[in-house]
Amino acid sequence: MAVGPERSVKIAPINGIRLAAAESGIRYAERLDLVLIEIAAGSTTAGVFTQNAFCAAPVTVARRHLAEKPSRYFLINTGNANAGTGSDGDLAALKCCDALAECTQTASSEVLPFSTGVIGERLPHSKIIDALPALQTKLAEDNWLLAARGIMTTDTRPKLSSRCFQVGDCTVSISGIAKGSGMIRPNMATMLAYVFTDAEIEKPLLDTFLKSATKNSFNRITVDGDTSTNDSCMLVATGKGALKIGDLESEAATVFQRELNSVFEQLATDLIRDAEGASKFMTIEVTAGASEQECLAVAYTVAESPLVKTAFFASDPNWGRILAAIGRAGVEDLDIDAVTVSLGDTLLVSNGGVAASYTESAGQAEMDKEEIRVNINLARGQASERVWTCDLSSDYVRINADYRS
Amino acid sequence: MAVGPERSVKIAPINGIRLAAAESGIRYAERLDLVLIEIAAGSTTAGVFTQNAFCAAPVTVARRHLAEKPSRYFLINTGNANAGTGSDGDLAALKCCDALAECTQTASSEVLPFSTGVIGERLPHSKIIDALPALQTKLAEDNWLLAARGIMTTDTRPKLSSRCFQVGDCTVSISGIAKGSGMIRPNMATMLAYVFTDAEIEKPLLDTFLKSATKNSFNRITVDGDTSTNDSCMLVATGKGALKIGDLESEAATVFQRELNSVFEQLATDLIRDAEGASKFMTIEVTAGASEQECLAVAYTVAESPLVKTAFFASDPNWGRILAAIGRAGVEDLDIDAVTVSLGDTLLVSNGGVAASYTESAGQAEMDKEEIRVNINLARGQASERVWTCDLSSDYVRINADYRS
Repeated sequence: MAVGPERSVKIAPINGIRLAAAESGIRYAERLDLVLIEIAAGSTTAGVFTQNAFCAAPVTVARRHLAEKPSRYFLINTGNANAGTGSDGDLAALKCCDALAECTQTASSEVLPFSTGVIGERLPHSKIIDALPALQTKLAEDNWLLAARGIMTTDTRPKLSSRCFQVGDCTVSISGIAKGSGMIRPNMATMLAYVFTDAEIEKPLLDTFLKSATKNSFNRITVDGDTSTNDSCMLVATGKGALKIGDLESEAATVFQRELNSVFEQLATDLIRDAEGASKFMTIEVTAGASEQECLAVAYTVAESPLVKTAFFASDPNWGRILAAIGRAGVEDLDIDAVTVSLGDTLLVSNGGVAASYTESAGQAEMDKEEIRVNINLARGQASERVWTCDLSSDYVRINADYRS
Repeated sequence: MAVGPERSVKIAPINGIRLAAAESGIRYAERLDLVLIEIAAGSTTAGVFTQNAFCAAPVTVARRHLAEKPSRYFLINTGNANAGTGSDGDLAALKCCDALAECTQTASSEVLPFSTGVIGERLPHSKIIDALPALQTKLAEDNWLLAARGIMTTDTRPKLSSRCFQVGDCTVSISGIAKGSGMIRPNMATMLAYVFTDAEIEKPLLDTFLKSATKNSFNRITVDGDTSTNDSCMLVATGKGALKIGDLESEAATVFQRELNSVFEQLATDLIRDAEGASKFMTIEVTAGASEQECLAVAYTVAESPLVKTAFFASDPNWGRILAAIGRAGVEDLDIDAVTVSLGDTLLVSNGGVAASYTESAGQAEMDKEEIRVNINLARGQASERVWTCDLSSDYVRINADYRS
């Protein structure tokens, strides 16, 4: 189950990037579970990672390697998160990097490892290492869909996004893949996302582009409020295309950031549309707040309230639950009589109660939609924020009660 | 469904308290939905109420009346929360108080109104007012079970608790009832709870006893993290018994507080055992923290994690989800290698990973129990806290997706 039809995405290959995927039997037989992404020499790489204190071994290793050298390979496995595995986990991740470095005649620190899957079990690193030589031979420029499928876990669809655009006389491409379906409340990062461009961008500037793109995409989504131990989001610039961006204040930088944001937003909202058990896609907008912080507090409290989420699952315009969630979000001196709540274009709440113009049939019509916009106007300032989320269905419970069995 | 067998509680009547319940057809026919509690003149009353900014009309009125005069009547309806009903809601609550005051020849401010049920619909106050004369004639000293049933909504069991104990030569009684099953993360109060004693206690001291008893009972439970708009918890001292408590430092005060805490803890844990869809009762202990605040942050993050809760529903010792929840609780500079997690007496996590002594069969044996204790040792201080919660089952989703239909 997922919200809306699956999009058909035409991916622009990125000069300097090759991809491959294989079945290495990490957890299940006959399932793509290992992805290799090759990055041309001379590229720059930026990354943001989970803020969870219990971050997984591959995150620790990837962070360290990224600080040491420009990356040449991303090695991604599913089926096992290599998290909560102590110092053995670090060793296992390093062994995979070492083995790939030997195959490809690079340094181990030029390889970044990523893992996703069950937490707390030892990574079967031999299976990964055994699969590497064959995997390397499969590297190709057009394997994007295969790679997007290869990083899926409870996802029901691959997530891809791509943009080609002009900056002056130059054609620029940005293409990316992502995965994630549950344990999603990214905090400075997301589940796994890999985005590539052929533009030439020095690392400090690339870091800035990534941070800005992440803020309004992967850092504004929530399925269940659970921040993963393995969240990682990478941005690579191969510099093989025509455009070079050297100045954040330039027209080229402005256009690039806008297009990059669009790719990130598409991938982030794809995660929510395909969230575990999701039947509704909800945009929670909080406007006229006194600060970004209070807007986010209200948006996340509403987005993560089990009672709001189950009401959306039932297509029930139970605005009282939205109101109760706003009321417990910790906004000081909130004037409840000034707050308004709308569902799509239908005003639900004003003057501390149900709006005079509201009818159950109008509310029901909005609720019956698959994609629903909730606007909460706090009537106390200029700040606004927006968070994407989904409903809480019986399928979410089934999926997460079954996950290890 | 509820956790464990229903307890049979022998209630000690409280001299000065009479109770009655009736069917007034507020939302459903043939269902007890109106409860009246009469308090003898000369009693003292303390109350704590929801901290939700969108508090319900009866909470506003009850708070104001409590500040004006000692209370003589509690009037409690189910089926309608009279919340999110604007100024009409205040008027409706006041009309009920006025009508009861007229029946009983008291002042309107001597009546405290309480409502629980669906949010955002107008209170059908005429039905309540029409039922009052007959209700008054039914008042009796031994109607505790009937009153406990009369305040139930999605509860599947009445909640009662009672203690008789000696202080020197005096026999003291404390008896109470409570309700609540979902939308439970009380904040300085709970859903609805009414506790009575025949001791004589001045109001300032009664306030202190109530605050202390609430802190470690109703303020340490969570079902879904949703703080209700209607939470209210009342403590009444009729002064009709032999004991008078005048000094917080006295032996009598110490004994009374301990017994009162025991009544509150029983009622609070009864709410969790009967929480919506609950099949497990979990005690989340956080020990060796640097502060009470960080212990609570960890305990609530674990207790409210949908992934932890669904794993408990599945009896799955998926300690990785517990570990991931601890890691996102916002504890600064947490030394993850020093943290230990135990399930009952089974050590699960040490040194940042699964404990060497851990076996899946030992974890499974703990998980198969209906009542499970999770201990999280942060190894960084002297503070400790304890929160009670339940699992997240498919029945929770079903109940809350069906609630308005």
